[in-house]
Amino acid sequence: MNDTFLRACRGERVEYIPVWLMRQAGRYLPQYQAVRADVEFLTLCKTPELAAEITLQPVDILGVDAAILFSDILIPVEAMGVSLKFSDKNGPILNELIRNKSAVDRLIMPDAEDDMPFVIETIKILREKLKDKVPLIGFSGAPFTLATYMIEGGGSKNFLHTKKMMFQNNRLFNYLMEKLTLTVISYLSVQIKAGAQAVQIFDTWAGVLTPFDYKETVLPYLKKIISELKREAVPIIYFANDCAGILKEVKKSGADVIGIDWRIDIADAIKKLGRRVVVQGNLDPCALFLSKEEIEERVKDILWKGEAAKGHIFNLGHGILPETPVENAVALVEAVHKYGRKV
Amino acid sequence: MNDTFLRACRGERVEYIPVWLMRQAGRYLPQYQAVRADVEFLTLCKTPELAAEITLQPVDILGVDAAILFSDILIPVEAMGVSLKFSDKNGPILNELIRNKSAVDRLIMPDAEDDMPFVIETIKILREKLKDKVPLIGFSGAPFTLATYMIEGGGSKNFLHTKKMMFQNNRLFNYLMEKLTLTVISYLSVQIKAGAQAVQIFDTWAGVLTPFDYKETVLPYLKKIISELKREAVPIIYFANDCAGILKEVKKSGADVIGIDWRIDIADAIKKLGRRVVVQGNLDPCALFLSKEEIEERVKDILWKGEAAKGHIFNLGHGILPETPVENAVALVEAVHKYGRKV
Repeated sequence: MNDTFLRACRGERVEYIPVWLMRQAGRYLPQYQAVRADVEFLTLCKTPELAAEITLQPVDILGVDAAILFSDILIPVEAMGVSLKFSDKNGPILNELIRNKSAVDRLIMPDAEDDMPFVIETIKILREKLKDKVPLIGFSGAPFTLATYMIEGGGSKNFLHTKKMMFQNNRLFNYLMEKLTLTVISYLSVQIKAGAQAVQIFDTWAGVLTPFDYKETVLPYLKKIISELKREAVPIIYFANDCAGILKEVKKSGADVIGIDWRIDIADAIKKLGRRVVVQGNLDPCALFLSKEEIEERVKDILWKGEAAKGHIFNLGHGILPETPVENAVALVEAVHKYGRKV
Repeated sequence: MNDTFLRACRGERVEYIPVWLMRQAGRYLPQYQAVRADVEFLTLCKTPELAAEITLQPVDILGVDAAILFSDILIPVEAMGVSLKFSDKNGPILNELIRNKSAVDRLIMPDAEDDMPFVIETIKILREKLKDKVPLIGFSGAPFTLATYMIEGGGSKNFLHTKKMMFQNNRLFNYLMEKLTLTVISYLSVQIKAGAQAVQIFDTWAGVLTPFDYKETVLPYLKKIISELKREAVPIIYFANDCAGILKEVKKSGADVIGIDWRIDIADAIKKLGRRVVVQGNLDPCALFLSKEEIEERVKDILWKGEAAKGHIFNLGHGILPETPVENAVALVEAVHKYGRKV
């Protein structure tokens, strides 16, 4: 197995900079569209054979150095008893708003083995199929990001309801965060036990908070998750989107790898994180609409700057967009492999 | 006239830290709602007596140290020939997409005096009414932000069309930016000649770019606007939203005052901008949903950190939200005046 990705996560010596892309198994691939044509998105996530098939697609098509479980960050939310539906246009819509104590009380603490057995099954199939290929990454939404969906009922512009609960009923907010934290720990532990060789925690909305609020109400839960999972001895990646203003706090999370979005120069991010942290990132997903030559130039710049860190895993600064030309994603992976080779 | 705000903009000695709030003339005020009840939003902007009345409301109700013209950042877009409508829910919707050369060709270069006479009239009324009170701020959207609305046709999640034009037809993008830049210069010059005592350039979407793209395709136009306007000898405030990753570039804009959003600690922002810059900001608009005591604590923290800069104007990190309790906005202004007093 090509374990370059795992060694890079641990800050060990690698022959070249490994690369994978957030949402690499997704809508930009015609092969994904073909499978998705007949099956609802959530059904896909919950059907191990299909989820495994989709997970494998970019490994062969792009030649990435890691596979990531095809699933959704909201799967544990559903397992906690909040049903949801997905619209291609407006993203997830939750059928219930979690805004008061009785709603938080009612949230089920899921037993991942019983309530999300499809995840375990998918991982087992994948480990078998990937055994001569690349490592498998498991993942979960971070508690704060999951909390925003529960409180707002979907996406949001200002996250006012989330912040109102945080500011006006901090105790209730912490109670919700506590339940989500235990769920995430159990969910990721089960993924690791089933065979995930690394896990990524996605904090899509962490960047909407002031650094103070991030530190007070997000970081403690993250630290708890990461310290609990450390026992499992697989690398833990933490991706906080729009992180430029909170990196000093993000650094304290204890994650092995810190994912960086595209809104900050990776050299600046490394300066803030320190040279003893492995970084992951950070090409603007929209840069995949440049010419191949210009993609190469941007790849070289990021690779060159990434050398200042303890380790670097190349990735986009956020998920690949559905409109992305596949040949440009292929060109990106080739460019990383070509220019990220260590002499 | 209380010129504390103007002196703070110039980095001069002030007796206390002045404060105004982005969107202070707006939906959170029942007095605004009363005027708005019978009149469309755009009609309000274009009716000098009503726009002036609304502009004055927060001066008396909140006791802020500056008034800002009631208008919309998209007024110059309309004057360029792109009609638009506003929905309370989805924000502005433009009736035309500016995505190819003939569309950019067709954009009118407005003569602000002929095409936006209502702005001049509103400013003249306001200067008369404000003469014993506080200074008047004029404003415009920044070229990049105006370009995003023209290209996307409204708000956007990923700004893919904007970035596609920037990446795939850079010449066309620059042509559009050039036209917008000249429009903004003419529009702000006319506001200053009519009596605006300071101007703010709103770059709501600057933060969606990588620092590299910001530097290459936004900063040069901004520098041009600011150097042209410098002749007018009124303070120029530049507010780039979600600025944490681009502050090093923002600093080079030449603006007298740099507005900071809430996603970065103001102490960090000042470190990046240097001590010779006047800063404006940066309370999270959602912090106005805290208790008055907690608002005071946050105000004190920002004031204390703001002392490291050459000057500080207190403001929110983005526009005040329509749901904001008026009494908390009043409490905020009182807290700034109380704790921002210089001994």
